[in-house]
Amino acid sequence: MSVGKVNLAEKLSLFDEHWSPKIVGELNEQHVKLVKFLGEFVWHHHDEEDELFLVVKGRFRMEFRDRSVEVEEGEFIVVPRGIEHRPVAEEEAHVMLFEPASTLNTGNVTSELTAAELDRI
Amino acid sequence: MSVGKVNLAEKLSLFDEHWSPKIVGELNEQHVKLVKFLGEFVWHHHDEEDELFLVVKGRFRMEFRDRSVEVEEGEFIVVPRGIEHRPVAEEEAHVMLFEPASTLNTGNVTSELTAAELDRI
Repeated sequence: MSVGKVNLAEKLSLFDEHWSPKIVGELNEQHVKLVKFLGEFVWHHHDEEDELFLVVKGRFRMEFRDRSVEVEEGEFIVVPRGIEHRPVAEEEAHVMLFEPASTLNTGNVTSELTAAELDRI
Repeated sequence: MSVGKVNLAEKLSLFDEHWSPKIVGELNEQHVKLVKFLGEFVWHHHDEEDELFLVVKGRFRMEFRDRSVEVEEGEFIVVPRGIEHRPVAEEEAHVMLFEPASTLNTGNVTSELTAAELDRI
């Protein structure tokens, strides 16, 4: 099995789309993904999966129904399963995700932002 | 359930020991850990767990029996289960780990570097 390394900046240079996660690593049935945020995502939750968001560049706001958390570069937040959330980025943010391979980006909802098949880069 | 954020630099400022991972997050039965590397670790493997090493600061060399990979700041490497490996850091490196909650730092071997009970910080 390959044990090459992954350079986050290099992978991030390979795509421009927003809200379209790319798979860059896999371990223990979890995926490591990179995604670019800009604007408002859709409100959703995941029934079975907890999600980790680590800010690689920029910042974003994780909105919950009762409050919100500003997540800055070098910070991460874990959103537990079942919790409704919506990421919002006033300016482009680069984010690393760590979540089960089964995770759909829009969770329990389907929208034009739903990414059914993710590219591996 | 709490959904607070975690600042990597702040957590890293809370300890000085080398090769002693601290748990800073938990999701999907996986742990997020922070660890400081300096010098040579022990050769080991993990029977059941894949491990991800993301360099937050500095660099280290992941040695395998047949080659080695230099992992720089902003890069990660996944070591699949069963693969013997040894991290080596000529200068102090700060590393984030993602791995199953069951993972023991020295895998299949027991040494003075084995950390049986990890602190949560």
